[in-house]
Amino acid sequence: MENLNRIKNPRLHDRVVTAEEAAGWIQDGMTLGLSGFTRAGDVKAVPLALVDRAKAGEQFKVNVFTGASLGSDVDKMFAEVGIVNKRLPFQADPTMRKKINAGEHLFVDHHLSHVAELLRADVIETVDYAILEAISITEDGMIIPTTSTGNNLAFAENAKNIIVEINTAQPDLEGLHDLYSPGKQGERDPIPLTKARDRIGKIGIQVDPEKIVGIVFTNQQDSPSTIVPPDEETQIMANHLLDFLRNEIKEGRLTETLAPLQSGIGSVANAVLHGMVESEFENLEVYSEVLQDAVFDLIDAGKVDFASCCSITLSEEKMKQVFGNFEKYRDKLIMRPQEISNHPEIIRRLGLISINTALEFDIYGNVNSTHVSGTKMMNGIGGSGDFARNARLAIFVTKSVAKGGDISSIVPMVSHVDHTEHDVDVVVTEQGYADLRGLAPRERVPMIIENCAHPMYKKQLWDYYQEAVERGGQTPHVLEKALSWHTNFAENGTMKQTVEVK
Amino acid sequence: MENLNRIKNPRLHDRVVTAEEAAGWIQDGMTLGLSGFTRAGDVKAVPLALVDRAKAGEQFKVNVFTGASLGSDVDKMFAEVGIVNKRLPFQADPTMRKKINAGEHLFVDHHLSHVAELLRADVIETVDYAILEAISITEDGMIIPTTSTGNNLAFAENAKNIIVEINTAQPDLEGLHDLYSPGKQGERDPIPLTKARDRIGKIGIQVDPEKIVGIVFTNQQDSPSTIVPPDEETQIMANHLLDFLRNEIKEGRLTETLAPLQSGIGSVANAVLHGMVESEFENLEVYSEVLQDAVFDLIDAGKVDFASCCSITLSEEKMKQVFGNFEKYRDKLIMRPQEISNHPEIIRRLGLISINTALEFDIYGNVNSTHVSGTKMMNGIGGSGDFARNARLAIFVTKSVAKGGDISSIVPMVSHVDHTEHDVDVVVTEQGYADLRGLAPRERVPMIIENCAHPMYKKQLWDYYQEAVERGGQTPHVLEKALSWHTNFAENGTMKQTVEVK
Repeated sequence: MENLNRIKNPRLHDRVVTAEEAAGWIQDGMTLGLSGFTRAGDVKAVPLALVDRAKAGEQFKVNVFTGASLGSDVDKMFAEVGIVNKRLPFQADPTMRKKINAGEHLFVDHHLSHVAELLRADVIETVDYAILEAISITEDGMIIPTTSTGNNLAFAENAKNIIVEINTAQPDLEGLHDLYSPGKQGERDPIPLTKARDRIGKIGIQVDPEKIVGIVFTNQQDSPSTIVPPDEETQIMANHLLDFLRNEIKEGRLTETLAPLQSGIGSVANAVLHGMVESEFENLEVYSEVLQDAVFDLIDAGKVDFASCCSITLSEEKMKQVFGNFEKYRDKLIMRPQEISNHPEIIRRLGLISINTALEFDIYGNVNSTHVSGTKMMNGIGGSGDFARNARLAIFVTKSVAKGGDISSIVPMVSHVDHTEHDVDVVVTEQGYADLRGLAPRERVPMIIENCAHPMYKKQLWDYYQEAVERGGQTPHVLEKALSWHTNFAENGTMKQTVEVK
Repeated sequence: MENLNRIKNPRLHDRVVTAEEAAGWIQDGMTLGLSGFTRAGDVKAVPLALVDRAKAGEQFKVNVFTGASLGSDVDKMFAEVGIVNKRLPFQADPTMRKKINAGEHLFVDHHLSHVAELLRADVIETVDYAILEAISITEDGMIIPTTSTGNNLAFAENAKNIIVEINTAQPDLEGLHDLYSPGKQGERDPIPLTKARDRIGKIGIQVDPEKIVGIVFTNQQDSPSTIVPPDEETQIMANHLLDFLRNEIKEGRLTETLAPLQSGIGSVANAVLHGMVESEFENLEVYSEVLQDAVFDLIDAGKVDFASCCSITLSEEKMKQVFGNFEKYRDKLIMRPQEISNHPEIIRRLGLISINTALEFDIYGNVNSTHVSGTKMMNGIGGSGDFARNARLAIFVTKSVAKGGDISSIVPMVSHVDHTEHDVDVVVTEQGYADLRGLAPRERVPMIIENCAHPMYKKQLWDYYQEAVERGGQTPHVLEKALSWHTNFAENGTMKQTVEVK
């Protein structure tokens, strides 16, 4: 069997099993730690075999811990057959989302950099089976990850048992990963990383080979990313952001190489980063969680010299281009555990410029990244809090309106707070940007309304603020109307106040 | 002049001026960086001379940046004469608070660890005059701080000019301070601190002596802290917290020496820490911003071996006891800049147990630390966000009701969010504690209501939640009623719903 070459430790050859056999070990009530971060590097066989058991009529539920979102429709199928008890820390699947919002699955929406700490400190459930996608297993039992590193190291260290899925369809990324565990709180040293390109760990996950109880072979590419290409509005947003950065250079706060860039998952953040392709900036570095298409466009354009990440999530076309010609990129990339890609120590030390997507923000700069109308989960906070809280520049981007103008992304009070006004430096829409740094709440309001809100909502925002300011306060509000825009949308399908009949 | 002994560099002897003279240099529109953190180590003469200028009829306004809150009624007098344009990052004075809430002074409420970064990155106004309290100036121009370190180093580095107030009434703390600047983001090394007692910097603030334009002598003690002694309810809260910690030990997550403790400013946090005096815990360490009375009680009781801080703020009685017999404590203390005492890198590395006070929290664990009824500033976020976001255990304490029961500190939705549910691990009231770690929002609700809410509000909270849950969502809410407890209080003076007449 040619595949056996991928298992360089011959003592492990007898661990090869079918996906069905491995899935058969999983029992009701267990906790699974699955590889996978923003669709990349997820395990693609054992989860499906588990779904088949449920489809055949078996009753069971498991906790599903991951890096971030999964591809391969795993979350969708898990939700459809209803085998999830608790899901942690991020998901992005519409079917799963529906079940979560219906209260059928518990979802612990958590900062991506913290999951490893929770596992290490034994605060959350111990992982019964870590199921990790790999390129290969080395002679001394090191598991070489594929297109994401995620929580793989933390799961492997914490798990009672490990199942490895060796995916022969994945590109040969051996040597690209940098696995570093900071060790226990109170006993650890500083994380010795001072530049985005520093290598501080091992190229694979070193485990006791006895913990590897099963090895399954697969041959299936990652699910391509679901981002949509940049459009006119996102290009305008990118231009606003570039203007802001140019002004920072003019003010002497940044140089032309800027600072290491982080960009969140999703079309808008990708498009904004893509907007730098045509910019004058050069010798840029990226220190991010996920690399989307835009980063490779920037490498191709000679703009980005080096990118540190936790996963590579590309569109179908970009996947062919990048993995079909990988030697071009190999020495420009490093992949780290999400605990390190998103670690506050590193984010603050490097002074990242952090660009993440908001669902909505309010006139004082509080940001909602997760909850539609304050109640319904979209995807999760992901790494946005890790970055925003510690970055040199925490930038949030969103289009100023949604649903054809019936939703204003700028509201009097956000219906859910993920990032407080303390942690939000700059907000950007297609209308413009507001630089909130060093401003008191009352100073922020005119900048946000005038620079960022859609013209059709400006008067309504000013009316709210003027009524609020008459009542006074550090952060003036008319509490009984603060969430009325959201309730208006729920009742009447629009945030627009009814026009008086003349 | 005997005082001149305190200026060991004779070239600086001719810089001695009166407070009036120094205050005379300050012009309309300037920015002042004042020493002072939680009333300790504030400058006591030049600010008052500045107030006198305003009282004499001069019209001017200045920006006032500090470590944290000031003593000596400086904020009160500044507010009374109305000379403040912008105040940053924390205050705790009732008169100042009133002016802020009336919109007469701009207040930038900010994480205490971030101010130095904002100054270093040139994001906020440059400090025209750093006015710093000192014990002495060394031969090579090093300024030795007094009872707080605050932002003194950052102000001194950033300021165009420095005025030093040598306070001969302050205890001789030379050798206690540890001044370390991490340097610019992107160019800095890891902060080399791995234990609460590590010394990493200098004993004073090294400045170019030419920047010291004036030296004023004062002889006045710090304002004593305003904390009230522990009462029965705070003792009960302390006991709940101790029970929680004991359980953590039982579960193997902590050892009997716990982890370095941080406790916020205020009576409740002080009382909870005081509750450890009678506990079985020993060889404890403190890594906090302010040391209040309780820490010295714990040192006296042989419970605390070492305490790192940014300021020492004591009651009048405790001040006499501690500073009257300081040799007993000298080798158990170190004082750091607030950038370091509150630095995310260190907080996460050491794995602090962090105890801070909440104004209110909601059924999902979001915490409001600052805004009364969502609009009126109390003091500011202070260090609570620095600690909560990165601690091993982020614990928030509050009494379950206020105003004789008319306010419930546990509400359906907090009226202002300072700490999101992602960052809050444990909430404690006199009713009990709720351990929220690893729980989905719907799992948190019963624990918070049953363990923490006052019995008189439990049914009301359950009624709200049940209505909310029928609408569904990851975080169920009845948006049009979410803030109704606060509006009810504003209208009717109570959060209690009207009892139906039978």
